[in-house]
Amino acid sequence: MEETRIRFGIMGCANIARKVSRAILLTPNTTISAIGSRSLEKAVVFASENHFPESTKVYGSYDAVLDDPDVDAVYVPLPTSLHVRWAVLAAEKKKHVLLEKPVALNVGELDTILAACDSNGVQFMDATMWMHHPRTVKMKQLLFDEQRFGQLKSVHSTLTFLAEEDFLKNDIRVNPNLDSLGALGDIGWYCIRAILWAHDYELPNIVTAFRDPEYHESGVILSCGASLNWKTNGKFATFYCSFLSNLCMDIIALGTKGNFRVHDFVIPFNEKVGSFYAVDNSKWAERALGCAPEPSELKIEINLPQEAFMVQEFGRLVAGVRSNEAKPENKWRVISRKTQLVIDAVVASIKNGFVPVEVVY
Amino acid sequence: MEETRIRFGIMGCANIARKVSRAILLTPNTTISAIGSRSLEKAVVFASENHFPESTKVYGSYDAVLDDPDVDAVYVPLPTSLHVRWAVLAAEKKKHVLLEKPVALNVGELDTILAACDSNGVQFMDATMWMHHPRTVKMKQLLFDEQRFGQLKSVHSTLTFLAEEDFLKNDIRVNPNLDSLGALGDIGWYCIRAILWAHDYELPNIVTAFRDPEYHESGVILSCGASLNWKTNGKFATFYCSFLSNLCMDIIALGTKGNFRVHDFVIPFNEKVGSFYAVDNSKWAERALGCAPEPSELKIEINLPQEAFMVQEFGRLVAGVRSNEAKPENKWRVISRKTQLVIDAVVASIKNGFVPVEVVY
Repeated sequence: MEETRIRFGIMGCANIARKVSRAILLTPNTTISAIGSRSLEKAVVFASENHFPESTKVYGSYDAVLDDPDVDAVYVPLPTSLHVRWAVLAAEKKKHVLLEKPVALNVGELDTILAACDSNGVQFMDATMWMHHPRTVKMKQLLFDEQRFGQLKSVHSTLTFLAEEDFLKNDIRVNPNLDSLGALGDIGWYCIRAILWAHDYELPNIVTAFRDPEYHESGVILSCGASLNWKTNGKFATFYCSFLSNLCMDIIALGTKGNFRVHDFVIPFNEKVGSFYAVDNSKWAERALGCAPEPSELKIEINLPQEAFMVQEFGRLVAGVRSNEAKPENKWRVISRKTQLVIDAVVASIKNGFVPVEVVY
Repeated sequence: MEETRIRFGIMGCANIARKVSRAILLTPNTTISAIGSRSLEKAVVFASENHFPESTKVYGSYDAVLDDPDVDAVYVPLPTSLHVRWAVLAAEKKKHVLLEKPVALNVGELDTILAACDSNGVQFMDATMWMHHPRTVKMKQLLFDEQRFGQLKSVHSTLTFLAEEDFLKNDIRVNPNLDSLGALGDIGWYCIRAILWAHDYELPNIVTAFRDPEYHESGVILSCGASLNWKTNGKFATFYCSFLSNLCMDIIALGTKGNFRVHDFVIPFNEKVGSFYAVDNSKWAERALGCAPEPSELKIEINLPQEAFMVQEFGRLVAGVRSNEAKPENKWRVISRKTQLVIDAVVASIKNGFVPVEVVY
């Protein structure tokens, strides 16, 4: 097994890289063969603290990771403004790319990345972990269940957490030079992805940002949201994201015959059990003195954290490409691009005074 | 006790009147002394089926109820388009008015009703039952809790149910001559009330309807929603209401330090226990491998249904006025009027192409 594992190079020592590195080491079909940071010392400490294999090569640059022939794929948790540079370079060095979200500052940048991946035949996937949780698969089955859900009518997604003082002073996500999309990129990304996921990746026709986002003194968005309209069947969605409210991670999906809610869709409260709440075919009691049934909790137990399922899937796709048995899977790049297109539409709507913005693939 | 009970006249045999009549008979300080319908026969059957007291006078007209000196107050569940006529007449006959929601087709009509109540010194209250549930009081305490909730940032309210074929053909709520506000008036009313309630009845500055409501072939709204912005602190809200999705009755209120959710705010699943779910001061686990605490369920047991609490409070206010010990309580008319103002703003926004509409009291 060991020799067939996909060998990751980790680009940088971001906090999120601790979580993903752990997942790579937990996942049967992947391992870590290198890490690079601008500071060799930081990389050494990071590799040690995160229990990287003894054999891991530790570099004082990102380029060295990309030049290492023992690296099949890179995980890129760098600030968003650096994605286009390093993801393109990685592709050019024939490294498969697992890219943190938001994938780019705009769809133009993303297209540059995707073109590089295409022309070099490497797999692209963004690191949207919750997509790979078996709970997500269960919820998707419900979305397609004619009896228990019916036709999707609307989705509301909320993602908020209260940024601490240190975050609001120093985090890259409030630095316009590093992550100029602020809360929209960092957490609005998840809401938009959830909405597209629920709509089976059919793009909305129109995106209209909510009025009066809140801004950091740096100019970066701290809270915002939007409504999304589809052309057919009254299909509709809203999202709201904020660095200024206590933690909330909701999807509410409403169908004609049923609905479901999940309250920890991005990071499950419990790593080993994912819950969601569903109800269908609700009826008023006589004289509307109540209604039934009550929503019930569905629990999905898992033996690996959701990010390990992500790494496993990425590893599986990379293995197919590496052995020349498969071409890179297009699904993930299409989903990334659609998510980015909606982000761009929200940005455009805000910039133009909260006007409706058409979304075209 | 019997002689001091507030004596209700029931105006009409609407289905909702069955529920409220039951509440009037359950409530210690109220009783039913008369019912009127355009059909005497229907009124007789209704009084019998709903176990009205033997002494109840049964009339073949609404006027007869208003002319009955043994009626202190009327409950008016008539179609919305008839409210202005019958509520004004009731006030002129010195009957206190418990008026079903939506209270009027627009704030102009409501002001006519309120002026009649004023000049005749009678109590006005709209029949928004959930406001009177002890659970609502508990949630309001949480909204004001600096440690467990902090500052309110946003509210999202959803109210949907799947209208059956018969409803979509025959119900007054899809008849533009009877209830031209459709889903907005029938259920959007609750969402808007919930939002105002959470914002301590501070009116939003701007209301912007979501694009592309769904319409009945009669022209009545079947689904719609809006976003609401306040001037200060980024305060924000959205709502969505629909006759075309399975039952959902949600409020999600997000504060800086905590949040809460309720999933049956309008009609509790269980008449005897009201639940809501709250969490505060959430923290990410190390490496963001989870978060804690999980939301916890708070249960409030009650000995009367929420509509009985409403009737009891209305009866208490009416008793004060009847005995000349108090003037009519203004709070409820102000809350009704603010709710109607937001409804009017949603209507205006929709009519004018989903533009932002300023709300002024």
